[in-house]
Amino acid sequence: MATLKFDKEITALLVIDPYNDFISEGGKIWNRLKGVAEANNCVPNMLKVLDAARKAKLRVFYALHRRYRAGDYETWKYIAPVQKSAWLSKAFEHGTWGGAIREEFEPQTGEIIALEHWGSSGFANTDLDLQLKKHGIHRLIVVGLIAHTCVEATVRYAAELGYDVTMIKDATADYSDEHMHAALAVNIPSYATAIVTTNELVEALSSHAPMKQSA
Amino acid sequence: MATLKFDKEITALLVIDPYNDFISEGGKIWNRLKGVAEANNCVPNMLKVLDAARKAKLRVFYALHRRYRAGDYETWKYIAPVQKSAWLSKAFEHGTWGGAIREEFEPQTGEIIALEHWGSSGFANTDLDLQLKKHGIHRLIVVGLIAHTCVEATVRYAAELGYDVTMIKDATADYSDEHMHAALAVNIPSYATAIVTTNELVEALSSHAPMKQSA
Amino acid sequence: MATLKFDKEITALLVIDPYNDFISEGGKIWNRLKGVAEANNCVPNMLKVLDAARKAKLRVFYALHRRYRAGDYETWKYIAPVQKSAWLSKAFEHGTWGGAIREEFEPQTGEIIALEHWGSSGFANTDLDLQLKKHGIHRLIVVGLIAHTCVEATVRYAAELGYDVTMIKDATADYSDEHMHAALAVNIPSYATAIVTTNELVEALSSHAPMKQSA
Amino acid sequence: MATLKFDKEITALLVIDPYNDFISEGGKIWNRLKGVAEANNCVPNMLKVLDAARKAKLRVFYALHRRYRAGDYETWKYIAPVQKSAWLSKAFEHGTWGGAIREEFEPQTGEIIALEHWGSSGFANTDLDLQLKKHGIHRLIVVGLIAHTCVEATVRYAAELGYDVTMIKDATADYSDEHMHAALAVNIPSYATAIVTTNELVEALSSHAPMKQSA
Repeated sequence: MATLKFDKEITALLVIDPYNDFISEGGKIWNRLKGVAEANNCVPNMLKVLDAARKAKLRVFYALHRRYRAGDYETWKYIAPVQKSAWLSKAFEHGTWGGAIREEFEPQTGEIIALEHWGSSGFANTDLDLQLKKHGIHRLIVVGLIAHTCVEATVRYAAELGYDVTMIKDATADYSDEHMHAALAVNIPSYATAIVTTNELVEALSSHAPMKQSA
Repeated sequence: MATLKFDKEITALLVIDPYNDFISEGGKIWNRLKGVAEANNCVPNMLKVLDAARKAKLRVFYALHRRYRAGDYETWKYIAPVQKSAWLSKAFEHGTWGGAIREEFEPQTGEIIALEHWGSSGFANTDLDLQLKKHGIHRLIVVGLIAHTCVEATVRYAAELGYDVTMIKDATADYSDEHMHAALAVNIPSYATAIVTTNELVEALSSHAPMKQSA
Repeated sequence: MATLKFDKEITALLVIDPYNDFISEGGKIWNRLKGVAEANNCVPNMLKVLDAARKAKLRVFYALHRRYRAGDYETWKYIAPVQKSAWLSKAFEHGTWGGAIREEFEPQTGEIIALEHWGSSGFANTDLDLQLKKHGIHRLIVVGLIAHTCVEATVRYAAELGYDVTMIKDATADYSDEHMHAALAVNIPSYATAIVTTNELVEALSSHAPMKQSA
Repeated sequence: MATLKFDKEITALLVIDPYNDFISEGGKIWNRLKGVAEANNCVPNMLKVLDAARKAKLRVFYALHRRYRAGDYETWKYIAPVQKSAWLSKAFEHGTWGGAIREEFEPQTGEIIALEHWGSSGFANTDLDLQLKKHGIHRLIVVGLIAHTCVEATVRYAAELGYDVTMIKDATADYSDEHMHAALAVNIPSYATAIVTTNELVEALSSHAPMKQSA
């Protein structure tokens, strides 16, 4: 792998769905993710990446799924399975603890929370692309949940929209190793230019060398 | 599975990348797809679906990847792996046999060819969504290549854009069974409301019952 | 003009920015709009259209501008004049009366509020297109504010996205007759298939004839 | 007006619809544009801007309207007036002189031609946004035709998408002074951060001072 280098003027961290329902003990979907998440050290790694990005003065963006509100789906004529299941589970219910960002991931002043997305991609039907452009961003470092749905979808959209993506493979999780494999080994390699570990990323961000964009 | 029913006023067939380079003997990528394609009876099934859709008077749309032209990528500052590999392989080269639609899939008068896409999704940076709306389409039946890249990407985008998707699982192919599994068993079930065989689809389209949209 | 007919299954009313800051006495921008608005009978006409649409069982959608929140623009590298002026005026400030929908236009159960937009178009960087598709809508009846910015922008986007637009010319307003003329007489005629009065619309919606889509 | 400065790494020239049908003697729409175009010195100014941009090593992009092809509109259920009129006039007919770029504006190697657009905006349903991002562009200098349709639409979309726009007011034209006024005096000032003359732009591009982006 070529040396990882990032120019902070054009690089941002994108944190996907750090909701209590996904990554906190007691969250609605945590039990389905816990096995892979703990084996992968997912939550501590997400925090390490966030911390390193802030220290390196990278801009941080949050892509958040629609928080469930009563009436969201009742009138729809067409609904995708992933939306039907969000409806049934009431995941990330608005105004509840499950629909709050896990405390340690609380956005800070100057960090950008994109409009909530209705499907899996943080870009679809939101202002994420606009916000990235308003801040001059061309490269994204991606962490978060769930690997084969929101993460993969957001990485695919990022590539289709012209962004360069670095995926942090041990700062994500999924229902099973099979799901992780489909996302990280089968699909994301076509869309992310680098797939690295938290440690590799942290080292790259904290290196003393001037952080210039790799050619 | 609920009975498959389609209202032809709002349903279309979407054929993805039926290029010689993908599905004809001698095509640049055919050798990598051949094993799975033949086991799946992919090309004959794609033709059966196309034939049934035309007989049922469904509108037919084609989503086609960018045909390689010299100069396409030289000036890009950012390039996704899937694009770098299209550049290297010169797949679907403009003006060549490999970049032509396989003869039996030639679009007929009244069928719509969307603008060419640069990545994997037939919707990204093209007029496919516009053309579907101009024709009043809300439901898509999807066949074509390659399952885990262009097909999955197009199905994901279709769902994010609000379309209802029926995936024909034996009218696609991929490099390996593992790739097919990631696309058809792991990911597409979250975005397509039905995943059926060619025979199930053909039967649904040719049934004498009035073809009304399912509730 | 051909007889106006609307099929309620595919037609919706789109109400643009009915904020107190725009259309209520005491609103931040009301004084700049008042002259044209009152001459045009804008607010009573908007209400008549809303009432007629609800009676005719049309689905109602709301396109709302970003409510100003502290920190919205400080970090942007690029900002359009229309956004700079929203920043300066703090129009539609979040949590204030000015940023609330005028009371008579309060959305009812089953009506859809799109995500807030950052510029002028109700479609740009929001879920409006998705929500319209999820409800099977192809035709829009448009009322609201301001004619040459948000209304014209939303009409232009609607047309580019494939929607059929009917503009209600006496249910909008602007800073001056010159602005109204630019929007209603110069530009919108290229994008809306009909530009009619409130009375013409109300009559069409309340006609006893079966409301079928015009050919 | 603040001093115009452009960083060539992030600035591009966007040339809109330099078709013979628009700007050449004998073109289908030339007679309707000629009066304003000649008074404005439109075509020579467009050439001066193009020449200055190339000398300053700015990347050049072309936004081109759909070239008319038989069958384009026959199957559409919905059609905007601007499209109906393109259908009637067969403007920019594919394969004809009228649908060719005027000779002096022929794109050179390394310049980018976006996919053709179906309405007025060079961004709608095309790869223009993608191509700009692939080249790292954030600021656009805009010239071309017609002021109140394709030019205004493209400027509006550019602003909604996050681009900074400089409009060259004497390198465009329209049917009448009233149309020019609506575009250049009423609407574009809300979306372009600068509206300048050809001479002001040429001077800015040819200045010896290092071309850095203005704060």
